[in-house]
Amino acid sequence: MALDEFVYKLATEGQNFASVATVMADGSPQVSLVWVDSDGENIIINTAEGRLKTENIRRSGTIALAIADSNNHYNQAMVRGKIVEDTHDGADEHINMLAKKYLDLDEYPHRQPGEQRVIFKIKPEKILKFEN
Amino acid sequence: MALDEFVYKLATEGQNFASVATVMADGSPQVSLVWVDSDGENIIINTAEGRLKTENIRRSGTIALAIADSNNHYNQAMVRGKIVEDTHDGADEHINMLAKKYLDLDEYPHRQPGEQRVIFKIKPEKILKFEN
Repeated sequence: MALDEFVYKLATEGQNFASVATVMADGSPQVSLVWVDSDGENIIINTAEGRLKTENIRRSGTIALAIADSNNHYNQAMVRGKIVEDTHDGADEHINMLAKKYLDLDEYPHRQPGEQRVIFKIKPEKILKFEN
Repeated sequence: MALDEFVYKLATEGQNFASVATVMADGSPQVSLVWVDSDGENIIINTAEGRLKTENIRRSGTIALAIADSNNHYNQAMVRGKIVEDTHDGADEHINMLAKKYLDLDEYPHRQPGEQRVIFKIKPEKILKFEN
């Protein structure tokens, strides 16, 4: 596992949210809160085609995330990294898996008609940790 | 009060964190989690001189924040806005006030020698709300 263990645990255990920061076309920042996952090397998020975040990530190829322990916000990691994978493959199954993790549901309940899910895998380049 | 009431409550009630997104000199995004406040018109954060966030905010003059209800992360607001005030005035008293709100301490316990606190007031230009 190449990913820092503390970051891996934040991304995979509990029901922790990631704050995902991207950059708009005009150079200003944008941020949203998302579910998060990891494959042990990369941080993984699951978004959808047509979203601001998706467009911003593709334009710049970079992303920043902050993941906080939902039980103790002072345990947190801030990560800056590059997109190493951008795929539809497995994205529907993956959002259902996240729905299980975060909502204890077998199927993602917020799917919109025609929505196409997207998986982004982010390879961390800078990690800042606060462990309490 | 000019600020949206739902956003105002997220910023002032409970112990909710704001995810603050800024843009680095190289155009990539940066994000960190901070305490948050509001004066009823602007969202207020308190940071320090010399921090990456402080430099990034001054360079671009723009900022994005996501504030989630710590008791229910699905109550959240995402805000993009402009810095309308950048001041040292009252910043020490203000960080002590935030220490009271977040830690129930009369004085901010993490002050570093020589640290100069900075208040940024952010006027929202775009607000996206998820109310559950």
